[in-house]
Amino acid sequence: MGQLAIDYHGSGVFRPREYDPDPPAAGEVQIAVAYTGICGTDLTISHGGMDGRVKEPWPIGHEMSGTIAEIGPGVDGWSVGDKVTVMPLDWCGACPACMAGNTHICHRLNFVGIDSPGSLQDRWNVRAEWLVRLTDGLGLRDGALVEPVAVAVHDVRRAEVGDGDRVVVIGAGPIGLLIGTVARSRGAEVLLSEIAPSRLALAAELGFPAVDAAAESLGDAVDRWTDGAGADVAFEVSGSKPGVRAVTDVLRRRGTGVIVGIQPEPPPVDLFQVFWKELGIIGARVYQRPDFEEAVRLVADGAIPVDDMVSDVMPLADTARAIERLDRGEDLVKLLIASGSSRSER
Amino acid sequence: MGQLAIDYHGSGVFRPREYDPDPPAAGEVQIAVAYTGICGTDLTISHGGMDGRVKEPWPIGHEMSGTIAEIGPGVDGWSVGDKVTVMPLDWCGACPACMAGNTHICHRLNFVGIDSPGSLQDRWNVRAEWLVRLTDGLGLRDGALVEPVAVAVHDVRRAEVGDGDRVVVIGAGPIGLLIGTVARSRGAEVLLSEIAPSRLALAAELGFPAVDAAAESLGDAVDRWTDGAGADVAFEVSGSKPGVRAVTDVLRRRGTGVIVGIQPEPPPVDLFQVFWKELGIIGARVYQRPDFEEAVRLVADGAIPVDDMVSDVMPLADTARAIERLDRGEDLVKLLIASGSSRSER
Repeated sequence: MGQLAIDYHGSGVFRPREYDPDPPAAGEVQIAVAYTGICGTDLTISHGGMDGRVKEPWPIGHEMSGTIAEIGPGVDGWSVGDKVTVMPLDWCGACPACMAGNTHICHRLNFVGIDSPGSLQDRWNVRAEWLVRLTDGLGLRDGALVEPVAVAVHDVRRAEVGDGDRVVVIGAGPIGLLIGTVARSRGAEVLLSEIAPSRLALAAELGFPAVDAAAESLGDAVDRWTDGAGADVAFEVSGSKPGVRAVTDVLRRRGTGVIVGIQPEPPPVDLFQVFWKELGIIGARVYQRPDFEEAVRLVADGAIPVDDMVSDVMPLADTARAIERLDRGEDLVKLLIASGSSRSER
Repeated sequence: MGQLAIDYHGSGVFRPREYDPDPPAAGEVQIAVAYTGICGTDLTISHGGMDGRVKEPWPIGHEMSGTIAEIGPGVDGWSVGDKVTVMPLDWCGACPACMAGNTHICHRLNFVGIDSPGSLQDRWNVRAEWLVRLTDGLGLRDGALVEPVAVAVHDVRRAEVGDGDRVVVIGAGPIGLLIGTVARSRGAEVLLSEIAPSRLALAAELGFPAVDAAAESLGDAVDRWTDGAGADVAFEVSGSKPGVRAVTDVLRRRGTGVIVGIQPEPPPVDLFQVFWKELGIIGARVYQRPDFEEAVRLVADGAIPVDDMVSDVMPLADTARAIERLDRGEDLVKLLIASGSSRSER
């Protein structure tokens, strides 16, 4: 015994469980988990919003870092002690999306940490093909940011953001800030839009021009910012109806809007503007292997303001309390949960 | 005197006017107009829906063919008697869209035949750079179809429709039929969706599998048609809310939806599906010069079923009556108006 897992039991209930980990099966490794970040999807789960997918009590969690503790039969190329993160996508390989090479949007995708057990535990057995190596200079705390950075890299790559592009990011939570950061690393000029004062302050601290969309029209602000031309790219990260409305307002002719935020109900979209300006509105979901690899490079190179983004680190036993803090909307950006193996580093 | 024009006076009123045409100014030619097609936009104008753009009483009309009757000073490369159509776009050349090479969606676009006088008259002075040559084998009646075919070519090109693609066209009016025809000419398999019985019958006559969207779910039909994979491309040509809803339903992962139909009010769009399936929803408006040139080739090659699409030809003096017939929703596809110069050919 002695290893801790936090199982999600549905209906918003988390319960600790002590366990002796099974040895890794063929093709698997066992990770000594260091850190797990809590993201918006985890909060949705904790509100009971995805109980149909967490089918039995198991730990959720998929933004993580750790070291390899044990290697199962038939696994090559990895050693005990290697620092890793996990690309938590398990695809079928046989559906039309997989056959077309779009495995990340597989028709039968198993999102690891939702549809199957995740990293909110001390020891985690995962398939070796999900592993992504954390390079030598990359600390385990920073490594837990690789997954959300990969989301941002994917979003920016889908939009084909290039040098000199003028990019508007609507919603400056963790993913919005990361999208802005990644776009800026590609030479784009980035304007953030937000309504929460604490997030506006952080955006300014990170050097982004930021518009308080509660106080002024984002369309007018972008009009001034671009001398009437409009933005090349707009990312909708807020998941709000006004955010969707702003996308078509701020884009230049032939501009690209990227839908990142979840819209539970179909919102009104100004398709006349889509037609009139020949806009492109594209969806971007999760990531592909090259996105993860670029994310590792960006975090390792110090391009991501990890210190500003990690608001606090709490122990695994306090997972439920961490989620309560995020629910209360304390001025938190990213909370990390520390599993047992992080103790040596802290 | 002796030349006839049909002026649109606003508020749905058309009035005939006899006139002596001015000679073509520098850089212009005078066209002896043969045929003008009436399109959906002309109907919108006739209902008073665009009175702010038809600023003085002048003829509307922009789907046309004719022969050059007179050549103004400084015009090279054209001869009296040349058969022509007009690409009715007059851009500023200086706005951000023009500077980016997207002159067809110029910020200050003058759409000739709406924002300035059009072809519902016997003689029409136009700038030489708007002319598009009708090749030798191409008759004047068929030439009047080049403009709407160019719309379809542009739509299909924007969607990058390729050989073997499975394409759904929602709305089988004139533009929908042309999009289907152009997509098929590129090797795509095309399924049309329509609710009007006469249009369903014509679609079948033209060899298209057609779904009666009033009787069965288009999503289910496309699911069967594609063995669950979904369509590669969907064109929304109906301008209806159910049409918009169908776009996100029928597309495969990473599929492309093209917004062709006008949506006066922002309709609900299932952006969750845009996100989940990483769809692209793009606008397509008018055309560019290569689209017009491909349209001339397609019409000349007999790829367009002109005989099936031209329901009737009526004389210029009967323009208002022609519009009434279209408004009554008689089983018409395309009505052509014959100006004076067509008499010799008819």
